[in-house]
Amino acid sequence: MTPLTSAPPLPADGRRRVVVENLTPVVDGGRFPSKRIAGDSVRVEADVFADGHDRVAATLLYRHESEFPWHKVPMRPLGNDRWMADFTAERLGSYLYTVEGRIDHFVTWRADLRTRFEARQNLATDREIGALLLEATAGRAGRLDAERLRELAAALREAPDDAAALALAEEEEAAELMAIHADPELVTGDAPQLSLSVERERARFSTWYELFPRSCCRDGDNHGTFAECERLLPEIARMGFDVVYFPPIHPIGRTHRKGRNNAPAAEEEDPGSPWAIGALEGGHTAIHPELGTPEDFEHFLAAARGHGIEVALDLAFQCSPDHPYREAHPEWFRWRPDGTVQYAENPPKKYQDIIPFDFENGDWQDLWQELLDVVRFWVDCGIAIFRVDNPHTKPFAFWEWLIAAVRREHPEVIFLAEAFTRPKVMYRLAKGGFSQSYTYFSWRNTRAELEAYLRELSSAPLRDFFRPNFWPNTPDILPEILQIGGRPAFVIRLLLAATLSPSYGIYGPPFELAVDDALPGQEEYLDSEKYQLRCWNWNDPGHLRDLIARVNRIRHQHRALQTGEGLRFCASDNDQLICYTRSAGNEVLLVAVSLDPFAPQEGRVRLPLSELGLSAVEPFLVHDLLGDQKAIWHGAEHVLSFDPAALPGAVFRLHRRLRREQDFDYYFK
Amino acid sequence: MTPLTSAPPLPADGRRRVVVENLTPVVDGGRFPSKRIAGDSVRVEADVFADGHDRVAATLLYRHESEFPWHKVPMRPLGNDRWMADFTAERLGSYLYTVEGRIDHFVTWRADLRTRFEARQNLATDREIGALLLEATAGRAGRLDAERLRELAAALREAPDDAAALALAEEEEAAELMAIHADPELVTGDAPQLSLSVERERARFSTWYELFPRSCCRDGDNHGTFAECERLLPEIARMGFDVVYFPPIHPIGRTHRKGRNNAPAAEEEDPGSPWAIGALEGGHTAIHPELGTPEDFEHFLAAARGHGIEVALDLAFQCSPDHPYREAHPEWFRWRPDGTVQYAENPPKKYQDIIPFDFENGDWQDLWQELLDVVRFWVDCGIAIFRVDNPHTKPFAFWEWLIAAVRREHPEVIFLAEAFTRPKVMYRLAKGGFSQSYTYFSWRNTRAELEAYLRELSSAPLRDFFRPNFWPNTPDILPEILQIGGRPAFVIRLLLAATLSPSYGIYGPPFELAVDDALPGQEEYLDSEKYQLRCWNWNDPGHLRDLIARVNRIRHQHRALQTGEGLRFCASDNDQLICYTRSAGNEVLLVAVSLDPFAPQEGRVRLPLSELGLSAVEPFLVHDLLGDQKAIWHGAEHVLSFDPAALPGAVFRLHRRLRREQDFDYYFK
Repeated sequence: MTPLTSAPPLPADGRRRVVVENLTPVVDGGRFPSKRIAGDSVRVEADVFADGHDRVAATLLYRHESEFPWHKVPMRPLGNDRWMADFTAERLGSYLYTVEGRIDHFVTWRADLRTRFEARQNLATDREIGALLLEATAGRAGRLDAERLRELAAALREAPDDAAALALAEEEEAAELMAIHADPELVTGDAPQLSLSVERERARFSTWYELFPRSCCRDGDNHGTFAECERLLPEIARMGFDVVYFPPIHPIGRTHRKGRNNAPAAEEEDPGSPWAIGALEGGHTAIHPELGTPEDFEHFLAAARGHGIEVALDLAFQCSPDHPYREAHPEWFRWRPDGTVQYAENPPKKYQDIIPFDFENGDWQDLWQELLDVVRFWVDCGIAIFRVDNPHTKPFAFWEWLIAAVRREHPEVIFLAEAFTRPKVMYRLAKGGFSQSYTYFSWRNTRAELEAYLRELSSAPLRDFFRPNFWPNTPDILPEILQIGGRPAFVIRLLLAATLSPSYGIYGPPFELAVDDALPGQEEYLDSEKYQLRCWNWNDPGHLRDLIARVNRIRHQHRALQTGEGLRFCASDNDQLICYTRSAGNEVLLVAVSLDPFAPQEGRVRLPLSELGLSAVEPFLVHDLLGDQKAIWHGAEHVLSFDPAALPGAVFRLHRRLRREQDFDYYFK
Repeated sequence: MTPLTSAPPLPADGRRRVVVENLTPVVDGGRFPSKRIAGDSVRVEADVFADGHDRVAATLLYRHESEFPWHKVPMRPLGNDRWMADFTAERLGSYLYTVEGRIDHFVTWRADLRTRFEARQNLATDREIGALLLEATAGRAGRLDAERLRELAAALREAPDDAAALALAEEEEAAELMAIHADPELVTGDAPQLSLSVERERARFSTWYELFPRSCCRDGDNHGTFAECERLLPEIARMGFDVVYFPPIHPIGRTHRKGRNNAPAAEEEDPGSPWAIGALEGGHTAIHPELGTPEDFEHFLAAARGHGIEVALDLAFQCSPDHPYREAHPEWFRWRPDGTVQYAENPPKKYQDIIPFDFENGDWQDLWQELLDVVRFWVDCGIAIFRVDNPHTKPFAFWEWLIAAVRREHPEVIFLAEAFTRPKVMYRLAKGGFSQSYTYFSWRNTRAELEAYLRELSSAPLRDFFRPNFWPNTPDILPEILQIGGRPAFVIRLLLAATLSPSYGIYGPPFELAVDDALPGQEEYLDSEKYQLRCWNWNDPGHLRDLIARVNRIRHQHRALQTGEGLRFCASDNDQLICYTRSAGNEVLLVAVSLDPFAPQEGRVRLPLSELGLSAVEPFLVHDLLGDQKAIWHGAEHVLSFDPAALPGAVFRLHRRLRREQDFDYYFK
């Protein structure tokens, strides 16, 4: 016989028979938190089962990181050993949740008792078994509950007949007391504790307007100021934007300053790129003097708040060669053997106006702390949204630490990752804490591309950690479709961005003015504001302000456009026509957009009526929200046609039942 | 300014910039091992990437649990930040593997050097940077490598021109030395260590024959013996089976013994169910006296080995009321308040001939040890395969511990889980260590059902831990299709089981004799061997022995049928016709089976020629392996027709290129 000694050790408690597996939501097995918004109902699911035929019970445990002990919620079975419960994530910050499981001996016994009763078996012994179960549990309960459990046991024994005993056993009080005092030694509690990062609503639903404050001068070619920007706020608010994002507002370096259209050498009057941060006047916590004083900036922030607008700043963690850090912290940069600082390079290209931090330097801890202090500085000034420039060129661990550090004190702070790079890099940044991310939307133009990309974004695992922010253009990206498609292309991309993603943004005024001049063969704007002052004509008759205002008003009025959920693509027989529904609760919107900026397009679309809760036989009211027209539709198939010269898309609200009283009112008002 | 003190602690080394994620194969995030067979090439993949533009390097680390240190294999990029390497799992037992990543500064520098060279930039400073990199690494290397690295640095400085320096830098020796001596402080090593359970070939590829030894009496109605079973071995071997599995061979209880057709009371001469284990003569380590002595059993085992057959025993961890455990270990059972032992029940059904163990009893540790000793007893007798009866009615933790304990001493032991229950329960048992599992195959009859089920089994995550064993029938299951479809149904189910799963088994002789008599409205055999002796006529002219022998010979001759990989379903225009290819290396089989046991069926099937490596324009040789006929086919579409009265399916070998020399030989031989 093989010796006994070599058996592996017995588990600590082999009597914990219940298995708890496959908890959701989960990101990378729990390494990163899932993301939700304060007030969200969080649906937690798990596989919970045991050997044999005993009934199991599952409990959701959750708590805010600052709370103790756990809140406990009984879970309910969904079938196929899947269980669910939900809780409301009320507060900003981190929640923890996990699931426990146990055999529910009492409920098992009770269900068997009923079966035996119905099979007319003798229940005497089974009643005694139940009474013993109650009494054993009484031994673990407090005085009051223990007394009640013993009373129940006695009643079970003394019931005049089996029917009375069964009725007693089936009263919920018994099962509830038995659940409360279940033997903790038999509860399976080894499921992972998962975490949830809870942010404020704007982390999910936001409408961004990017502009260069130095171009805010409405008349002439002078350097714009914060004071002049203030004059634009009413117009930006009227268009429905709630975030104004400024490129860096710090002093700009002189050494190797770039000229117009990225010329290697600047002319004397060229203002340089705002991303070449740092000069004699200061670095990342200073303000470029030509924009105004810190007081001017504070005044601007207050004015924006008055319009319901938040200001987002740009975190571009890089320096011009004139940045004070170069002298104060030479160890933070990489020095070449020839005694020069390594400037930014992507060989053979050279960016001599930028010197990047060397995150592998021996003094990295001080660098991280300093950069955290930069963020804290602006948070203390009242900034709660940051657009982070090229986060994918700094270590992932740095961002995870920095964002956690900021959120620990200021859970309201939102970070948007401007990483245009490979998907896994973008997703890792999002997992590490960025609230929102730039996306590939800028290059997804065909129906197949858009549908595939949106399906990816709205499915697990992405939907739990990656919040898209769609930008039809940016100062770095004037996509080909906008270069060739004229004004209709701008409208198409606006409609798509605004209705496919709860957060989107435009870089204006070039967007509203449908500026389409690019450097030849590139996505770069001709005469880009990145390198020179521009004066935009906000009164151009072609300005898209009214359409933008209407689109954003629809977004603000309809919950269905404020989340990433509830998106369904509709079949259509014309690939130039993309069509989808957005729904939230009882609200159903239908969006149809022609992807062709050049010619009219018509197509037959099929609505998934039953999935939308709409009747296939009754008519329903359709409200064209952009045109403010109403119609009555009937059935699943509808022909839609769009002329890009007029409006290449539509947003309809579908009213589920025409004959409801409120719909009558609505229809005839 | 917010105080600095509340920042979260800095990570231990924020300079480890590489991320390693998403290792595969993986089961439940590493909680359970993936499964492979000794000799398998194990393909490990991971996402490996870093911030910025530096080149990364990834290394696979693996070792057998008994080995140290790790073997290291450089990984190669697959695109999209995915990396792969493979290793051969030579030995039985457990392997560990993980992936490390690092920035490859030297390769980054070298690639940049080439780009700069081609852009005709001055390389003087870059050569010096490379030399310094080499010298810094020399400081970490042993004497010989350090000398060589310093020589290389000097050569780089002294090269007569930049072209010569570049040539030096690009010699592989430098990169290899730099990789070997990479700075361990910058290597990311926090990826999980995953494990792999490596079993012998028969865990994957096995052909089972279940029979009741007490029915082995070829003449008359006497109780069969091991000696009589021996006389059947040549026939079983000729049919191509390599595992003979016996239901329990232990003494059978008398108390509450079941009669014929599960009658509640046995007649005097009824032998009882072999699963009612334990009597005066002994328990789980004893042999039922009427079958023979322990020496007879050993003789049988040796005879089986002589035929290349292994014997599998049944582990049925339950007792008859007469089992010696009841007296010796009353605490292992559940006692009712009326002083009786709780028998098996599924209310209102009662199984008084069985008393289950109470795995929640306070003495569970001793019970686990005793059951482990039972397995060890039979392993010491030469048994290396166990079919486990109803494992889903014992705790998962128990099986995980028991299987690990057995494998620690005897990694060759194979366990087959007979759990016919809900999917998550079956899958958890497989994750916990069972080598093979019974499946839902018995109830999957239509083409859609079979294709969906096979797709599930052959995809992640199941393919990495769940090895199916397909059984067309068992003593408990005579499926409806076999009750109504006559002999053609048996042939259909045989062909499917044998070609869809590398392991399959039949319960004979009822299978070969196409026995289809069931209890009315049930899947139970009429006059089941479970409760009475049966005498089978092995010489019945309808016996399927020849077809079975042919099918199993094809399985043994073709690697493609010995793994769960390489399965592709083919489109066909007749849903009664299922058609699939099985491939391994250069070997391609095409299997087509009519699912209709009643009428001839014809259909046009389309072969995925390019996926199979077959030419769409050249003819290829087709060998009908069951009929031993050959033909030349051409193109992707072929009409196949089958008559259930003759043979309702076919197995073809497709030879990739007719004009290869060996195929000519083959064709004309």
